[in-house]
Amino acid sequence: MISVAVVDAETPGNVGTIARSMKNFGLSELLLVDPPELDPDGEAYGFAGQAREDILPNAREVSFDHLTENYHTVACTATTNEGDANHVRFPAKTPRELADSLGEVDSDTCIVFGRERVGLTNDELSRLDEICSIPAAGEYPVLNLGQAATIVLYELRTVTVERTQHPEELHPHADQRAVDGLHEEFTRFLDAVDHPDEKRQKTRRMFRRVLGRARPTGREVSTLRGLFRSARTKITRLDSDDE
Amino acid sequence: MISVAVVDAETPGNVGTIARSMKNFGLSELLLVDPPELDPDGEAYGFAGQAREDILPNAREVSFDHLTENYHTVACTATTNEGDANHVRFPAKTPRELADSLGEVDSDTCIVFGRERVGLTNDELSRLDEICSIPAAGEYPVLNLGQAATIVLYELRTVTVERTQHPEELHPHADQRAVDGLHEEFTRFLDAVDHPDEKRQKTRRMFRRVLGRARPTGREVSTLRGLFRSARTKITRLDSDDE
Repeated sequence: MISVAVVDAETPGNVGTIARSMKNFGLSELLLVDPPELDPDGEAYGFAGQAREDILPNAREVSFDHLTENYHTVACTATTNEGDANHVRFPAKTPRELADSLGEVDSDTCIVFGRERVGLTNDELSRLDEICSIPAAGEYPVLNLGQAATIVLYELRTVTVERTQHPEELHPHADQRAVDGLHEEFTRFLDAVDHPDEKRQKTRRMFRRVLGRARPTGREVSTLRGLFRSARTKITRLDSDDE
Repeated sequence: MISVAVVDAETPGNVGTIARSMKNFGLSELLLVDPPELDPDGEAYGFAGQAREDILPNAREVSFDHLTENYHTVACTATTNEGDANHVRFPAKTPRELADSLGEVDSDTCIVFGRERVGLTNDELSRLDEICSIPAAGEYPVLNLGQAATIVLYELRTVTVERTQHPEELHPHADQRAVDGLHEEFTRFLDAVDHPDEKRQKTRRMFRRVLGRARPTGREVSTLRGLFRSARTKITRLDSDDE
C-alpha cells in the first residue's frame, strides 16, 4: 500500500488539498507529522472535497520516526541540482520514474512531503530512502505544496487507481474499413458535385490527410459518410427531377 | 505559444494557484473570462508565488468569443464518460496525449479551464476545438480547479519548459567498468574477511542483484569500492602485524 505523509505543514488548506488529491488518485492513508489544527469548519475540510468524509477524519498524527521505522520512504523535494558529489538530494527519480519503480514493489511505501516554504530539512532527507523531484522550469521550480503533492499522486495513479472515470478507450479510432468506406463515399460526392476532374486526386489526398490527422471515431466516420451520402442522394434526385 | 484561460472562476485563490503553476511550467499568458476581483492584497496574489510579479498583473480580461476567434482551443473537463454517441465531451485526449500532439503544432493554442463546481458548460465545450480530460479514480474523478490546471500544465512542460532545475541527468548511472571494478573489490573483500568458500558465489550474486536494482551513480560506486578496499587493506595490515 502507498501512504502519504505531510511533515510540519503550516496551512490547513494544503492538508485538505492533499487529502482531496489522494482521493482523486486512489490513495487513502494520510499520516501527519506535527500538523496544524484541522478545524472541521476550517480550510482543511473546506478544501478536501469528498475526502472530508474519510481521508481527512481518518488521518493519523504520527512521529517522523514512525515513518522511517514502518515504511519504505520517498522524500519529495523541489531542488536536486546538487549533483553526484552530494547524496542528500541526489540521485533522484522523477514522479513518473517513481511510479514505474513502485509498480514493481509490494512493501508499504510512504510518500513524504515537507513544509510549505522550506520543504524537508537535510536531516529529514538523509533519513529517508529515496528522493523524488518534479521537473519544472529552471527559473522557478518551487511548486506550492498542494500542487506538488497533486502531481506526484497523479503520476502514481498507474499503481493506485484500478479504474478511472474514462471509458475503456478515451479515443477509440474508427476501424480502417469504415474509414475506407468514407473515402469511397467522398469520391462519389466529388462526382455528384461535379468537382473538376483535374483536381479530384488532390482533393481526395487533402481529405485523406485531414482525416488521418484527426483519427476520427467510428461514430464520427459514419456521421460524415452519412452527410456526404445525403448530399449525393439529394443531388441525384434533383438532377433526375430536372430531366 | 500556449496560453491559459480560466472561465468564470469564483475563487481568487484558484486564479493565483494557476498563475503560479504556469510560472512553474514555463507558460506566461493568462486570459480571464468573467474573473472574480483580484485584490493585490487578497488570495490570488497570496497564492501566486513569484507569478504575482508578472503573470497575474499581466493577466488580460477577455470574452469567451476572443478565445474561440484567436486560438486553437483545448477544453479541460473531468467527465468524459459519455462515449462515442456524444460529441460534446468525446473523444478526448489525456494531458500527456495533449502534450504530445501540441509538440507538433505551432499555432497559438489556449488551454481553457472552467468554473470550480460545474466546469465548462456543454455550450462552451461545443465551441472549443479539442477536449482534454485527466484520468483519475472512477469513484471521485473531480479535481479541484487549481489541481487540475497544475496537472495539465505539468504535462505540457515537455513543450513549454526549455530547461528544468534538474541536472542533465537526474540519476546518472555509473559506467559498467566502474561497477565491474566494485565487484572485483568486493570479491577481494570476501577473501579478506574469510567468507566461507562455499558461500562466496551466492554472496557475490546477492551483491550483484542489490547493485543491479539500485543502479548506483559513479560516485556511489567509487565510495563503496573505497570502503571495501579500506577494510581489506586494514585487515591485511593487521594480519601481517600479527605475524
